[in-house]
Amino acid sequence: MGRSSYRALILIGDGLGDRPVAEFDGQTPLEAQPTPNLDALAAMGECGLMDPIGVGVPAGSDTAHFAMLGYDPHKYYTGRGPLEALGVGLEVQKGDIGFRCNFSTVKPGPKGRLIVTDRRAGRIKTRTDELARTINGVGPIDGIQFIFRESVEHRGALIMRGEGLNDGLTDADPHKEGQPVRPVRAKRPEARRAAAALNTWIAEVHKLLQHDPVNQERRKQRKRPANIVLPRGCGVAPHLPPFKEHTNASGGLVVEVGLIKGLGRFLRMNVLDAPGANGSYDTDHLSLARTALEALRKSQIVLCNLKAPDLAGHDGNAEKKRETVAKLDEMVGVLLGSLDLGKTVLVVTGDHSTPVSVKDHSGDPLPITIAGHGVRADDVREFGERPCAQGNLARIRGTDIMPILTNLIGVAEKFGA
Amino acid sequence: MGRSSYRALILIGDGLGDRPVAEFDGQTPLEAQPTPNLDALAAMGECGLMDPIGVGVPAGSDTAHFAMLGYDPHKYYTGRGPLEALGVGLEVQKGDIGFRCNFSTVKPGPKGRLIVTDRRAGRIKTRTDELARTINGVGPIDGIQFIFRESVEHRGALIMRGEGLNDGLTDADPHKEGQPVRPVRAKRPEARRAAAALNTWIAEVHKLLQHDPVNQERRKQRKRPANIVLPRGCGVAPHLPPFKEHTNASGGLVVEVGLIKGLGRFLRMNVLDAPGANGSYDTDHLSLARTALEALRKSQIVLCNLKAPDLAGHDGNAEKKRETVAKLDEMVGVLLGSLDLGKTVLVVTGDHSTPVSVKDHSGDPLPITIAGHGVRADDVREFGERPCAQGNLARIRGTDIMPILTNLIGVAEKFGA
Repeated sequence: MGRSSYRALILIGDGLGDRPVAEFDGQTPLEAQPTPNLDALAAMGECGLMDPIGVGVPAGSDTAHFAMLGYDPHKYYTGRGPLEALGVGLEVQKGDIGFRCNFSTVKPGPKGRLIVTDRRAGRIKTRTDELARTINGVGPIDGIQFIFRESVEHRGALIMRGEGLNDGLTDADPHKEGQPVRPVRAKRPEARRAAAALNTWIAEVHKLLQHDPVNQERRKQRKRPANIVLPRGCGVAPHLPPFKEHTNASGGLVVEVGLIKGLGRFLRMNVLDAPGANGSYDTDHLSLARTALEALRKSQIVLCNLKAPDLAGHDGNAEKKRETVAKLDEMVGVLLGSLDLGKTVLVVTGDHSTPVSVKDHSGDPLPITIAGHGVRADDVREFGERPCAQGNLARIRGTDIMPILTNLIGVAEKFGA
Repeated sequence: MGRSSYRALILIGDGLGDRPVAEFDGQTPLEAQPTPNLDALAAMGECGLMDPIGVGVPAGSDTAHFAMLGYDPHKYYTGRGPLEALGVGLEVQKGDIGFRCNFSTVKPGPKGRLIVTDRRAGRIKTRTDELARTINGVGPIDGIQFIFRESVEHRGALIMRGEGLNDGLTDADPHKEGQPVRPVRAKRPEARRAAAALNTWIAEVHKLLQHDPVNQERRKQRKRPANIVLPRGCGVAPHLPPFKEHTNASGGLVVEVGLIKGLGRFLRMNVLDAPGANGSYDTDHLSLARTALEALRKSQIVLCNLKAPDLAGHDGNAEKKRETVAKLDEMVGVLLGSLDLGKTVLVVTGDHSTPVSVKDHSGDPLPITIAGHGVRADDVREFGERPCAQGNLARIRGTDIMPILTNLIGVAEKFGA
C-alpha cells in the first residue's frame, strides 16, 4: 500500500447518464433536476465526459466496474457466470467455471423434451435455500464437483470444479418460455466433458426437485414448482490481482448490487454493508453515504454505488429518475459536509447510461467531476451531461479513473525514471 | 440485423478538412464559405473533431473508410492492391494476392533492361479493354492464375490466384520515369515463387502488348504505346466480415470512387450508383443526396461520399474548394428537407484533410457533427474545423463513428451484463 494519507471516494450513480427527455424540454433528468450539491462539487472540480468501455459502447454494470476499479475488462472480464458466483458468496477458485442460473418451471413435452413454462418459477421467493441443499446433493459427476447457491428470488449461481474444465459451453436456458430446455453443447472439443457432465447434472437435479417437499407444497398452493435449474453465461474464474496489489492503494466498497460486492470481495477490498441500503427506490441512500465515509477511515480509495437511477432508467420513468438524482445530490451533501477536500478527492459519475427513452443500458458517455486535493478546477458550474462536457477533463475512459486517483493521492508509480 | 426502425446517414466530404488560407484571412475554405444548412445541422447536433486513424496521422481514403465503416485498418487493411482489384469489380477470393497496375510505355535500354518512358502510357483513354483481353491470355504460370482488369485511363488491377501465395513482393513500377522496370523481388523466402511467376508474367505481357493492334494504331497516331503493365502495392485479400455481421446493422453505400464501391460490395453492403455522379467537379451532387435517401429505405446505416473537395485540395485551389463546400451544403439542405431527425441520425464529416496548401492528404483532424435521434445537442452553431472543436463530442476517432451510430439507432450489443 502506497504511503499516503490522502484519500479518494468515487460516488457512482448506477445508470446515471441519459438522453434529452421531451417532458423536460429536451433536458436530461440530471440536467432537469436541481442539484445544488452536485453543482457545488462541479464548481470546485474538474469536469468531463467518461466512456466506461469505449466511445459508443453500451457497458454492463459488471464491465464498467471492472474498468473503473482499474481492471481493463477486455483483458480481465471472463463473463457474467463466475461473477454471479462471486456475488452470491461462493468461493471461486482458479480453474473453476461459473454460471448464473434460474430456478425455472418445466413440463414434459413431445419426444421426451422438457418445455420451459416459466423461466422464473413463479418468481419464487421463499425456501430456495432448502432447494439448494437438495441440489448440492448431486455429484460429483465424472470427477467434477457441482456447487450451487441460491440468490434473491429465482436466481442462483453454479460452480463446476475439476481438472481441465473448459468454459466453451452454451446455455441450457432457452431464454424464452414455451421452448424446450436446450441441451448444453460444447463450443469446442475441449469442453465436451464439461458439457456432458452438466447435462447429467441438470437432469438429476430436475428429478430430485420434481419431488422435493418444497415443490409439493408449492403445487398445493397452486404456485409453479421450481423443478429445474437452468445455467447460462458460462465463464472461467477470472484472474484478478487483488485491488491493493493492482492499484497500490487499499480499497473499500459500499454498493448495493451483490455482483459488485462479490467482485470487491474477490479483489480483497474492504466491503461494507450499509444498513437500510436495499438496492431499491426506497433504499437508505444517506446510510450509503455515511458508510462510504466510514470505509474511508480504513481504505484509501472507496467506491460507492447508488443503484436507484438505473432502476428508473430500466423502468423508463423520467420523473422517478429525477427523484433518484435528487437522492444522489443529497448523498453528495452528506459527503461535502464531512470530507476535508484538502486531503480527499471526491469523484461523481455513473457506470453507464440507462436512458429512460431506451429502458436499457446505452453507450452514451457519462458526466464526471473530480474535486478536491490537487485538482485543477475548471469553469464548469453545473453537474450534468452537457455542462460537464465543456470541462477540462475532456473525454476519458473508465480505466482512466484509477490512474487519475492514484496520481492525485500520491500512490501512483512512475513509468520510467 | 438489429431490430430497430431508426436509421443513420453519414455524409462524407472527401478531403474536406483544411488549414488556414491566407486569401481567406486565415479561415479554412469550410469556415470561409457560408454554409447555412451545415450550420443548422451543427446547431441541432453534437460536434467535435475526428481523427480518421489517429492524431496527426494522414489517412488514405481507403483506410479512413475502413475505420469509419467500423473496421480498424490496423487490423483489417492489407494494402491498396487487393482493394484496387475489388474496386474494378474483380472477385477477390481468400488466398489471392492483388496489385494495382499502370499501363506504361517502355523502350529497350542498356544491358537488356526496359526503361520506363511514360508511367501512364500517354494517359491512354481508349481500348484498354482490348488490351486486357490480350493480357488475360497469359498464364497460368507455375500453376498460378493471373486475372487482370482495366480501370479508368491508364489504371488497372491484377489478381494472382493459386496455392500458398505470399504477398511479400516489391513493385515492378519504378515510380519514376527514365528508370528501368524493377524486377519484382521477394521480401521473404515464401514469396519467391510468386515473384518469379510475376516477373515471367510481366515479360510475356510486354511481348504480347508490343505487337498488339491497339498499340500499332497508337504508334501511327504518334501516341505512346501501352506496351507493359507494371504492378505495385501487393497485398493479400483482406478478411473482412460482412458489414451486417460486423456492425449488427444493414449497410448502404453511395459513393463516387470505385475503390470504396468495391469495398462496399465486398462487405455485402447495398451499393447504389447515383445517376450523374461522376467523381468530378461537375458531378451531380444533389443526385448523390437523393440516392443516399433512397438507400436509407433499405439500409439502416448509409454512407455517402462527395469526392469533389478532395480534388480541389489536390489541385491546391482554395476558391474551388469553397465551391465544393457549397455543394456539400446543398446536399445537406436536400437531406434536411427529407429526413425525419426524430427517427434518423445524420452525421457530416470528412474522411481526411486535403489542405489546398499541402495538395495532398494531411493528418489534420476533421470537423464532425452528429444530429438527430437521441443526440445530446451542444452549443456549437457553425460547422467548421474550429467551431466544431468546441463541441461536446470532444475528439474522437474514425473507428468511434460506428459504435456511436449503432448505439444511437439501438442495435449495439452490450459488453457485459
